[in-house]
Amino acid sequence: MNSVRVNLGSRSYDIALTSGDSKSVGAFVRAGLPKTTTALVVGDSNTQLHGRVLETALIASGFRTAFAPVPAGEPSKCLEQLSALYDALYGLAADRQTCVVAVGGGVIGDLAGFAAATYNRGLPLVMVPTSLLAMVDSSVGGKTGINHPKGKNLIGAFHQPAGVWIDLALLTTLPEREYLSGLAEVVKYGVILDSDFFSYLEANTRAVRERQPEVLLHVVGRCCRLKADVVEKDEYETTGLRAVLNYGHTFAHGFETLAGYGTLLHGEAVAIGMTCAATLAERLGLVGADFVSRQTDLLVALGLPTAPGHSYPTEELISVMRRDKKAVGGQMRFILPTRLGEVKLFDDVPEPLVRAVLQSH
Amino acid sequence: MNSVRVNLGSRSYDIALTSGDSKSVGAFVRAGLPKTTTALVVGDSNTQLHGRVLETALIASGFRTAFAPVPAGEPSKCLEQLSALYDALYGLAADRQTCVVAVGGGVIGDLAGFAAATYNRGLPLVMVPTSLLAMVDSSVGGKTGINHPKGKNLIGAFHQPAGVWIDLALLTTLPEREYLSGLAEVVKYGVILDSDFFSYLEANTRAVRERQPEVLLHVVGRCCRLKADVVEKDEYETTGLRAVLNYGHTFAHGFETLAGYGTLLHGEAVAIGMTCAATLAERLGLVGADFVSRQTDLLVALGLPTAPGHSYPTEELISVMRRDKKAVGGQMRFILPTRLGEVKLFDDVPEPLVRAVLQSH
Ligand SMILES: NC(=O)c1ccc[n+]([C@@H]2O[C@H](COP(=O)([O-])OP(=O)(O)OC[C@H]3O[C@@H](n4cnc5c(N)ncnc54)[C@H](O)[C@@H]3O)[C@@H](O)[C@H]2O)c1
Ligand SMILES: NC(=O)c1ccc[n+]([C@@H]2O[C@H](COP(=O)([O-])OP(=O)(O)OC[C@H]3O[C@@H](n4cnc5c(N)ncnc54)[C@H](O)[C@@H]3O)[C@@H](O)[C@H]2O)c1
Ligand SMILES: [Zn+2]
Ligand SMILES: [Zn+2]
Repeated sequence: MNSVRVNLGSRSYDIALTSGDSKSVGAFVRAGLPKTTTALVVGDSNTQLHGRVLETALIASGFRTAFAPVPAGEPSKCLEQLSALYDALYGLAADRQTCVVAVGGGVIGDLAGFAAATYNRGLPLVMVPTSLLAMVDSSVGGKTGINHPKGKNLIGAFHQPAGVWIDLALLTTLPEREYLSGLAEVVKYGVILDSDFFSYLEANTRAVRERQPEVLLHVVGRCCRLKADVVEKDEYETTGLRAVLNYGHTFAHGFETLAGYGTLLHGEAVAIGMTCAATLAERLGLVGADFVSRQTDLLVALGLPTAPGHSYPTEELISVMRRDKKAVGGQMRFILPTRLGEVKLFDDVPEPLVRAVLQSH
Repeated sequence: MNSVRVNLGSRSYDIALTSGDSKSVGAFVRAGLPKTTTALVVGDSNTQLHGRVLETALIASGFRTAFAPVPAGEPSKCLEQLSALYDALYGLAADRQTCVVAVGGGVIGDLAGFAAATYNRGLPLVMVPTSLLAMVDSSVGGKTGINHPKGKNLIGAFHQPAGVWIDLALLTTLPEREYLSGLAEVVKYGVILDSDFFSYLEANTRAVRERQPEVLLHVVGRCCRLKADVVEKDEYETTGLRAVLNYGHTFAHGFETLAGYGTLLHGEAVAIGMTCAATLAERLGLVGADFVSRQTDLLVALGLPTAPGHSYPTEELISVMRRDKKAVGGQMRFILPTRLGEVKLFDDVPEPLVRAVLQSH
């Protein structure tokens, strides 16, 4: 079994990379959490079947379990669903060792993770990501949370999982559009941290789109390692290092908010946002036109959008972007490429340039 | 100015002990939080005036502020009030440096502290405790949280404040019964950690009850130091050391729950709980009858109850105590005295003995 170690002192954990081996999840949980006897498995309507299989495996390994179903979709990252998970934990007579097992995409991971972070002031959490985005991004790094009616992920806590169990076979049921959306974050890792990985993706677009198992294993494993490297250096997003992961995200946040959640998938917005960021970097003279086109070509080859399908009022986009929580004191901040495989934080980008980039897309 | 330092590495902070010196709060906040420019002041209907004075002082020091009023009382530790604080933070356009200033008793501290812990994955928090209980206990140590309909403090997070500002003059408006209730925790510190302090209290019951300023300064300062010592050794309640603070609390939890929150004040329940715990320790042969009567005499001299005014069904008490979050796997655990100034954790107390103690009270 392949695995990636996330080194965070007493909060270190393993990301197991498996394929179709649910039976071993019990041993994995027990190795990380020797004192745990009960587990709450959380899944949504689309991941429920995967969740039930895992639950059965946990029961076979001697855990007492319950299953908490959550409606699929972003609106479930809310206080009401959080409250329902608290009720489920109470119903299970959860103690401080009870483990929350999040089986789903980023929505389930964020919601169940936040419930784990805040029930009894912190329960152990095992992430079982089922979407590509969750495998390469949301399940690693300890960010959990829900949305505020006025802003995405505005409520949350850092809470590292006790382990991440990735079963690549679960991706077979993931709808095409969701899969492609996850590829945007995959491309992001190449751009911000690893030009070799970017080249690997360029050379394997077809195999990636076809979800070929050995390519998936390499892609997911590499993304987890790259994200873990960043998280290890800036666990709580205080040194600024972790901010590199936000490449394309300030723009994406604007498009996602104005489109209304659900219209644009997160990865689609990130693909568009990365294109805006690359254009901005080019106008600032940080990279050449070749950089922008290489990134655009790869995104397009992977079936991702590079411009919003719809035109949004620039002033509204700017106003949302200024309220982005990465902003400090109303000042927009951008992570921009300086070459393939390297990005830096810029907090003094002239607003007219940002406007111009938004108007050109 | 007296102060107590809480040493927790990068999360270290000062507890300032002042009297009637609100003007200096701005400098105190600035010293701890040089990057902060905005503050949300939270208070309840009874602490609102104190909160407004502090808000004025913060404005005079150049902070941009807003005031968020919360209804007084335990029921405010709920998702609805939490949600209202999130809205207030959003309304203030809070960024990651925005500081939450909790001006009130334990309810405001726990609620506003949890909002700070979870908004934007963690905002700095300044505690301005206004009840005796909050000064000596809840504002120090980083526990924040709200209640679940089924259990007190079931939802929460560890989030250390950036500073604690204690103004002893604020106690002048605290109702007598609330003040006495806070004294139960004061006695607790003597019993669990400091027999000299216990003797000091015995020698000064009258001055303590009259809230004489120099006695208050010593009492509050000593309790903060004692609590800080424990928290420094077991910040996240993992080593078991912090559990000593729960002396009397497993029983108290039973009485509070069955009386219905609001009937018995927390400190009153703790006084009764400590009496039960002392009796249990005596029956186990851990301490002599002299210990029990010394503790009872001090509690009575300080105007505190030592038995529930009402008799509760023993089985229901036991059932609540078993569900106490200090319990592990349904097994009750008790912190019991072995001599004045020392307690230990016992997780193998025969249940019939517990029953007998409950029936004798
Ligand atoms: N915590 C973090 O660090 C972090 C990072 C990035 C994104 N996020 C969050 O993640 C969320 C987006 O994650 P997502 O794209 O996984 O969304 P999601 O959880 O909504 O999953 C997308 C859709 O795919 C379905 N699905 C998931 N796995 C499936 C499978 N194996 N088979 C069939 N259907 C499946 C889901 O039911 C849902 O309908 C956002 O809320 C975002 O804020 C968090
Ligand atoms: N976080 C912790 O470590 C910790 C520790 C112990 C208790 N607690 C929590 O603290 C809460 C109890 O705290 P509390 O006893 O302070 O309750 P509280 O906050 O409800 O205050 C008690 C009453 O006194 C009023 N009040 C407070 N200060 C006043 C003042 N200066 N003048 C006039 N009125 C004033 C309040 O409005 C309230 O009506 C409980 O919810 C308990 O769970 C938390
Ligand atoms: Zn993303
Ligand atoms: Zn207490």
